[in-house]
Amino acid sequence: MLTKSEIKRINSLKRKSKRKENGLFVVEGVKIIQELLNSKFEIEQIYALNSVVDLFPNATIISEKDLSRITHLSAANSVLALVHIPKTETEINKEDTVLVIDGVNDPGNLGTIIRTCDWFGISTIVCSLNSVDCFNSKVIMSTMGSIFRTKIVYKDLNVYLKETKLPIYGALLNGTSIYETKFTKPSIILMGSESHGISKELLPFISNPVTIPGAGKTESLNLGIATAIFCSEYFRQNA
Amino acid sequence: MLTKSEIKRINSLKRKSKRKENGLFVVEGVKIIQELLNSKFEIEQIYALNSVVDLFPNATIISEKDLSRITHLSAANSVLALVHIPKTETEINKEDTVLVIDGVNDPGNLGTIIRTCDWFGISTIVCSLNSVDCFNSKVIMSTMGSIFRTKIVYKDLNVYLKETKLPIYGALLNGTSIYETKFTKPSIILMGSESHGISKELLPFISNPVTIPGAGKTESLNLGIATAIFCSEYFRQNA
Repeated sequence: MLTKSEIKRINSLKRKSKRKENGLFVVEGVKIIQELLNSKFEIEQIYALNSVVDLFPNATIISEKDLSRITHLSAANSVLALVHIPKTETEINKEDTVLVIDGVNDPGNLGTIIRTCDWFGISTIVCSLNSVDCFNSKVIMSTMGSIFRTKIVYKDLNVYLKETKLPIYGALLNGTSIYETKFTKPSIILMGSESHGISKELLPFISNPVTIPGAGKTESLNLGIATAIFCSEYFRQNA
Repeated sequence: MLTKSEIKRINSLKRKSKRKENGLFVVEGVKIIQELLNSKFEIEQIYALNSVVDLFPNATIISEKDLSRITHLSAANSVLALVHIPKTETEINKEDTVLVIDGVNDPGNLGTIIRTCDWFGISTIVCSLNSVDCFNSKVIMSTMGSIFRTKIVYKDLNVYLKETKLPIYGALLNGTSIYETKFTKPSIILMGSESHGISKELLPFISNPVTIPGAGKTESLNLGIATAIFCSEYFRQNA
């Protein structure tokens, strides 16, 4: 049985400040924890129902009731892991293509973007400092395990984009059609937030303004969708 | 002030059966209701806070408290409309490219797919009978208004795909690369469900099996993302 203080500690990790303070985050679900076990991430503890303990021999067995007390999901899964937040190297490999996001708030969007980047082999993501925390449970869930294979760094984009020597392809409404754009490798793909686009002060850093053309009836695409179309087009040209 | 029975009636529309019974669905938010007013959809009633009533002169003014009693969202917006479910023509125009989805369960996914199709000018979507209802509030919200410009029909795909004369491009794991596929216009783009892919019994109808190639580290893409990449590639070739 879990102690009150264990339950309190795990629940506190729903908050970013507590994740930072404890250096821990939560992962839930059989498949994603199997991926976690194959990653370099360091696990503090796994809590599992008796029904799945064969898959996780080092887990602490807990009751459904206890699991429902510590889950971060609306409906508890059968296994939950406490994982150490890795020490991020903030250094970016100069030969890597990097996806840069200027303000992503929706955890599901960030998770899906991480999963999509992983699919297309873009293994570094730089988020602006005001973006949602990538160790938020909803982000983790929607990455489907891609979080364990992707380097995610939070940076002041004014500094980072000023210093980089890579070409910067920025998603704008009045750029060249993405289908007529030649993406070089490596490069930076810069996406703005869903509500405000790319911040004004970052616009001068864009070397190649790029637009996804459409049939002209709707105003915008979802950020995760727009990012995927950029990644796909980059991959088509450079794979 | 709203009566108890009004509140009960609007809340009951969270359920598909009640939406069908009443022939009504709920739309919430200033921007999307402005789009609604420009559409052919027939509005039964608009409920608005005093603060936004200038934008909706025909609205019934209600208090924040009453709005919180009828909202389908976790946090109420400032305006809510009751809208008649249109009588769907189940007939599909033979010259239209159609997106067909074999089982979409997640409302956010379906909403995003509708928004993406609208962006790329694909104005007809056929969903299998086991798919989530497109008049679910979460679907409506994530379409950002595209629901009012898109024809969405629920059909037995075994019958529909058997009868169609269009080429059927099916999203599979072992098809031709999407980047080497020539999409003809009009055609059918067939996507499977996120968890099970395309049903076995539909596989014989596929004339062109198509795969989104990737870097090979992750198992799959989110359904909304995969659909967007198909729509984008179709649009790139046919716009």
